[in-house]
Amino acid sequence: MPEIFRKLSRGPQIVTLKDAGIIAAYTGLSPGDLVVDAGSGSGFLAIFMGNIVRPEGRVVSYEVREDFSKIAARNVKKAGLEKYVEVKKRDIFKGIGEKDVDVITLDMPEPWHAIDHAFAALKKGGYLVSYLPTTEQMSRFVRACRNKGLKHERSVECIVREMDVKETGTRPETKGIMHTAYLSFFRK
Amino acid sequence: MPEIFRKLSRGPQIVTLKDAGIIAAYTGLSPGDLVVDAGSGSGFLAIFMGNIVRPEGRVVSYEVREDFSKIAARNVKKAGLEKYVEVKKRDIFKGIGEKDVDVITLDMPEPWHAIDHAFAALKKGGYLVSYLPTTEQMSRFVRACRNKGLKHERSVECIVREMDVKETGTRPETKGIMHTAYLSFFRK
Amino acid sequence: MPEIFRKLSRGPQIVTLKDAGIIAAYTGLSPGDLVVDAGSGSGFLAIFMGNIVRPEGRVVSYEVREDFSKIAARNVKKAGLEKYVEVKKRDIFKGIGEKDVDVITLDMPEPWHAIDHAFAALKKGGYLVSYLPTTEQMSRFVRACRNKGLKHERSVECIVREMDVKETGTRPETKGIMHTAYLSFFRK
Amino acid sequence: MPEIFRKLSRGPQIVTLKDAGIIAAYTGLSPGDLVVDAGSGSGFLAIFMGNIVRPEGRVVSYEVREDFSKIAARNVKKAGLEKYVEVKKRDIFKGIGEKDVDVITLDMPEPWHAIDHAFAALKKGGYLVSYLPTTEQMSRFVRACRNKGLKHERSVECIVREMDVKETGTRPETKGIMHTAYLSFFRK
Repeated sequence: MPEIFRKLSRGPQIVTLKDAGIIAAYTGLSPGDLVVDAGSGSGFLAIFMGNIVRPEGRVVSYEVREDFSKIAARNVKKAGLEKYVEVKKRDIFKGIGEKDVDVITLDMPEPWHAIDHAFAALKKGGYLVSYLPTTEQMSRFVRACRNKGLKHERSVECIVREMDVKETGTRPETKGIMHTAYLSFFRK
Repeated sequence: MPEIFRKLSRGPQIVTLKDAGIIAAYTGLSPGDLVVDAGSGSGFLAIFMGNIVRPEGRVVSYEVREDFSKIAARNVKKAGLEKYVEVKKRDIFKGIGEKDVDVITLDMPEPWHAIDHAFAALKKGGYLVSYLPTTEQMSRFVRACRNKGLKHERSVECIVREMDVKETGTRPETKGIMHTAYLSFFRK
Repeated sequence: MPEIFRKLSRGPQIVTLKDAGIIAAYTGLSPGDLVVDAGSGSGFLAIFMGNIVRPEGRVVSYEVREDFSKIAARNVKKAGLEKYVEVKKRDIFKGIGEKDVDVITLDMPEPWHAIDHAFAALKKGGYLVSYLPTTEQMSRFVRACRNKGLKHERSVECIVREMDVKETGTRPETKGIMHTAYLSFFRK
Repeated sequence: MPEIFRKLSRGPQIVTLKDAGIIAAYTGLSPGDLVVDAGSGSGFLAIFMGNIVRPEGRVVSYEVREDFSKIAARNVKKAGLEKYVEVKKRDIFKGIGEKDVDVITLDMPEPWHAIDHAFAALKKGGYLVSYLPTTEQMSRFVRACRNKGLKHERSVECIVREMDVKETGTRPETKGIMHTAYLSFFRK
């Protein structure tokens, strides 16, 4: 794991590196982008994206839980990204203060409550991304986004399979992570 | 697919978005990084990385074939990244001019010929990444890198599975891409 | 593909060999077993199972559509298994004539309508198996079977990945079948 | 797991149910078949196949290790299949006594030493199957079989993904078995 992520404190379960990489790739996340992220959790995804959008861009990460928002803010500081990533202790269901947002990522159990605010905050062509463990959550979110007029680009799961490369032979590892979450990508 | 990649010309087979995202995530690719990439192919991976390391960073992409280097250079221009991504029509097996490189990516059939040059060019802690379709290539490269004293962090394959989310039900797509390449990550 | 299956006529989409093998393995399908199968479709799964349970066992395959039941019966004959596999042109939702059944397999869009009849027909310890493409169908069926008092042993998907083994190297095939159906296994 | 397999003693690592099911499916294993299996290990695969080929068929399972052959023989007895499955404490590299064999399965680290004997023992159209954990073993075996004139039908890996179906939602299990072995299928 790269240095920047290695020293972060673990609190709530984090978006994995693989999924963060896929989110950056499929949204074309770029320097200068304005990103809204919710909920912060440990701040891992916000930090990952903040690292890419800096120095001109900015990530605003909403977290409704006091304890998580503190962990996230501390991790942002550890990563040295406090100029680019702001953790707001605030409920995203109550509104998004930012405008003309390039990418919004939602890692929360009921993201459908955030769609109206996300739609209003996104710039034309901007991406909305959800990170959801179950198919019921994903399909409910996809339906709700379509109803709102967002274009569903794709929903995927990303499986990274570790390979065991030894003198005695090459093979996939016996055990591994089979599933983290489904990622859905929408455009305004 | 994000705008920045949509308009690129296709020539030789490109590193896919998913693999580019995994490379960025697992190396912690950051603004300001100096990256060496070979071979350029269509320039897709160089452009992807150049977009992340800018404005302070730089990608130097080596391509031995004249025709490919022209396609790559044209694509870099289309992406508007010519200030950050330089395509060199040059054989990386003959040497790497850059020093203190953060990340080197090798997408070529016989990357083992580039290990000595890569080792010399990498900064301490820098990443070497290979992108290889067969297990024989991967295991040969892993062995050769270990012999050179590079630390093998992991080799993986990344499988992205498209989900079909319809009113009538949710399911993985019937057919899809089963394999692109194995990615191996090494540190100096 | 083994001879016995090679000469069958294709009509409606068939349960794949991989899934048939998993069904046989996870139910411990054995010579002498009495099996009920619905719908027959092309008869492929009934023939696969009939081949295993013979000579003492028997498969009774229900098919509500006239055209499919004819294709299935013709395929059973081509496979030379007409003594062991009977295709009934009948709606399984109207009842199952067999008693003390060892294994019941349901390959149909709304198998929940067959649960009461399946429960009554199964012997104690017998297996009920569903073959369903979407997660909504699977979860609805699992819930309905649990409510009926059937024990949910497991639900799985089986992914067979073809390997390309050439002189030039070994690798998974680029493209392939990503998904056929989810298999759920229940015991009375 | 079906009764017949549940009571078996575990000794050496066994061929999993999923792979046994795929072997049965892809070879069209049928009642009456004569099968040669080596090495026996715990006897699991021999028992699985013996259960299908009985009552007319027979499985002869070679095991060079005394301790394993005893575990295997004891398991065959526990499964009640001693009339159909014979465990021979014998080195298959020294020869195969059976003729006109329908299916030969090899679960051992260096199966290439058994190819000549397997070829001689197989009937025309019979199947040779290998079960090998690494790609190097698989590719070496495939090359050696091709050189002998055996037709390589396919090499596969079978990944079974457990689904978690709860009231709270449906999703693949987080962790699971990523790899057991590659299966290769050849015909004489």
